[in-house]
Amino acid sequence: MNQLLQRRTIRRYQSKEVSPELLNHLFECAFRASTCGNMQTYSVVVTRDMEGKQRLAPAHFHQPMVTQAPVVLTFCIDLRRFSTWCEQRKANPGYDNFEWFVTGAVDTLLAAQTFCVAAEEEGLGICYLGTTTYNPEQIIEALKLPRLVFPITTITLGWPDESPEQTDRLPIEALVHEEVYRDYTPELIDRFYTDKENLEENRRFVAENGKETLAQVYTDVRYTRKDAEAMSVKLWQAVKAQGF
Amino acid sequence: MNQLLQRRTIRRYQSKEVSPELLNHLFECAFRASTCGNMQTYSVVVTRDMEGKQRLAPAHFHQPMVTQAPVVLTFCIDLRRFSTWCEQRKANPGYDNFEWFVTGAVDTLLAAQTFCVAAEEEGLGICYLGTTTYNPEQIIEALKLPRLVFPITTITLGWPDESPEQTDRLPIEALVHEEVYRDYTPELIDRFYTDKENLEENRRFVAENGKETLAQVYTDVRYTRKDAEAMSVKLWQAVKAQGF
Repeated sequence: MNQLLQRRTIRRYQSKEVSPELLNHLFECAFRASTCGNMQTYSVVVTRDMEGKQRLAPAHFHQPMVTQAPVVLTFCIDLRRFSTWCEQRKANPGYDNFEWFVTGAVDTLLAAQTFCVAAEEEGLGICYLGTTTYNPEQIIEALKLPRLVFPITTITLGWPDESPEQTDRLPIEALVHEEVYRDYTPELIDRFYTDKENLEENRRFVAENGKETLAQVYTDVRYTRKDAEAMSVKLWQAVKAQGF
Repeated sequence: MNQLLQRRTIRRYQSKEVSPELLNHLFECAFRASTCGNMQTYSVVVTRDMEGKQRLAPAHFHQPMVTQAPVVLTFCIDLRRFSTWCEQRKANPGYDNFEWFVTGAVDTLLAAQTFCVAAEEEGLGICYLGTTTYNPEQIIEALKLPRLVFPITTITLGWPDESPEQTDRLPIEALVHEEVYRDYTPELIDRFYTDKENLEENRRFVAENGKETLAQVYTDVRYTRKDAEAMSVKLWQAVKAQGF
């Protein structure tokens, strides 16, 4: 519990390896997570070879964790194994559609997060790479993912070589709604976001980017509409190309 | 660690309440999960009132957990709060697209699963309801979810009133690939699925449904192509209707 409250993302790792036995033990925990109809519609590709990491690096905008971490794990929605089993057992699978893309994503992400909790309990550090859905077609090619397999998130894993400060979070009441959704009035937005906006680090961030507000740093610099719309088209094309 | 390995889904609960303090503590853990750009693109709607549970029940095909559990939690992708903040801070948000639907889903599911791990550590039992993506429009209506908010999973929560057997899982090697995806040959499918097929419970399942193979129970009874294709259309329509 305390570990969950104290956690922080780790982006720098010692050169020390993560043993295959420990990795297997973490997978054992991860694959105990809830899964729709006990179908386990996911696969994990383990990248340890430097050559493999270098093939993945461009898809992740060359973030240094990808080549620096001893282990990179790409968590994939996988309806292929289940469908192949069906076909081999005189059954006609119907899992090549949007419903199963989403159901597979849920399955995969519950396993991924359980993996991370188990890893942090062992003293390992992890970092999620959101870039996985920005350039899926490059990852699909690098890992030779066939039809009905889709990369949904990536984790870099290793023994921590840094101990960063914990980042801020919104107050709980900002995220929880009682009985029905309570919409956000201007007063509530001010109440929930003011602490974040006043953080020294965020003030510096605004100044460095020459912006007026922290929100503008997000919309104009970090996560722009233009990028999101271009990525949406590519992501959807990749989903369709993988047969969903 | 041991808890992660020993876990099982709980579908029957004692009538004992889950205190608001405990629930808040679990949320505190959940909201420490990794989140894209520290944007926390999720909301949780807490349903405790019987009236609210009854409104949700049809969307979940009247599975008894929904009305029997003291607490039902609907985890929603939420780009609305962040976008509202942007608009209030002279910034132009661009999060109404497929990329942010998927990124929001990742964020939401990491928080949901962290919640579940924390809850189980406290002795609580949980059950995920995959039905959330089958009838999203009913849930959207019941919880009054506005534009850019989308229900992606639901958890029923309570103190366990059963201790079911653990369900089987595929062997780890069935799910993990070294360096690149290793496709499933007929021999591998046989090796990975035979134990599952031979389970007494699954053999009974095949007989009761008058089928030849376990796979046919999935494709012809539990998760048919016809249902999946109809649900895919509805799900996509609901995603668009919510503004993504």
